[in-house]
Amino acid sequence: MDVSITDFREYAEGKHQTVDDYPYGGGAGMLLKAQPIFSAVEALRERTPDTKPRIILMDPAGKRFDQKLAEEFAQEEHLIFICGHYEGYDERIREFLVTDEVSIGDYILTGGEIGAMAMMDSVIRLLPGALGNADSAVTDSFSTGLLEHPHYTRPAQFRDMEVPEVLLNGNHKWIEEWRERESLRRTWERRPDLLESYTLSDQQQKWLEEIQKGVD
Amino acid sequence: MDVSITDFREYAEGKHQTVDDYPYGGGAGMLLKAQPIFSAVEALRERTPDTKPRIILMDPAGKRFDQKLAEEFAQEEHLIFICGHYEGYDERIREFLVTDEVSIGDYILTGGEIGAMAMMDSVIRLLPGALGNADSAVTDSFSTGLLEHPHYTRPAQFRDMEVPEVLLNGNHKWIEEWRERESLRRTWERRPDLLESYTLSDQQQKWLEEIQKGVD
Repeated sequence: MDVSITDFREYAEGKHQTVDDYPYGGGAGMLLKAQPIFSAVEALRERTPDTKPRIILMDPAGKRFDQKLAEEFAQEEHLIFICGHYEGYDERIREFLVTDEVSIGDYILTGGEIGAMAMMDSVIRLLPGALGNADSAVTDSFSTGLLEHPHYTRPAQFRDMEVPEVLLNGNHKWIEEWRERESLRRTWERRPDLLESYTLSDQQQKWLEEIQKGVD
Repeated sequence: MDVSITDFREYAEGKHQTVDDYPYGGGAGMLLKAQPIFSAVEALRERTPDTKPRIILMDPAGKRFDQKLAEEFAQEEHLIFICGHYEGYDERIREFLVTDEVSIGDYILTGGEIGAMAMMDSVIRLLPGALGNADSAVTDSFSTGLLEHPHYTRPAQFRDMEVPEVLLNGNHKWIEEWRERESLRRTWERRPDLLESYTLSDQQQKWLEEIQKGVD
């Protein structure tokens, strides 16, 4: 896996190598011009003529990045992230150059760099060999369709805070049941939307009803 | 505004200053222990006894970070972000120490650091004086409730790609109308969910119907 950084200013034409300019029609703020970004991306493509890169623009109005899109990107041979800072983009970049407009969430950042880092981290960790077992504790939240159950480690008592008895007694069947049930509980409490697209087993349905009634 | 970084390993007790351990009940992966993180946060609070910090844990199962939460955090005097890397957390950290569990999106990262950077960027840019006017081109996407209209800058023709005529003729009223209409179009095409919580004016309602019918 290779990562490289390209400064699109180096591809700007003209004496001052200008990369931004005022918007047509008025308004505050500057926009990134089409030419430097087209030229920078084209130079990248010339260096890797055999790949068909996804050309990704970070934008709060783009498609929401999620684990499914991370998995899709992880299958690709070549990703190009276009990151502007503080600025908007000339629309022709979106319309004629970019293949994917992606947002990492409904919040505004000062530039695309941190968003690109988040996407790269999320994609690279899916590549074979990228991570060892150490990661597995946090991988399950989206892959099973339910949120993860709580985890505890030593000591069994920290100050006056105790680990649930069931995790200490070593009965594997009970532990599995407790985990599944707590996973359901957390999902119901925090992200009930995830349950809508999840098929509950009969046992899970029963547990969920008990949780909802506050029985346990 | 001050930013400081604390290494919670420095607060780990015991000869080896261990910060992680195996999960009770078995399972792959390691968990961050309660003690080092409690002690590190407590040391931070002792240094700033007059603030009531929000203590934020990055977690994919947490509340979704959005612009509203960024604005809320921007009102706070002190934010503490707890960032683990590759690992899960002992549940007692969530239950008894943390005030906010926050997720930057439905995707898995290898740690909390990039997520914390994203949140910090989003919050800090809201602080008075943090940014100049240069930022305004990208600020509107969530503050008006609609996605932003397209922007164009010079040249009016780049290769065979042209700027819409209306932006070049200088009639401010037409430009404003075009922008509002394109803003509606983009929102309807990409994020129709935003229209559900938006109150359309009569004019906007008429435009939206035309857009939906493909009249223009």
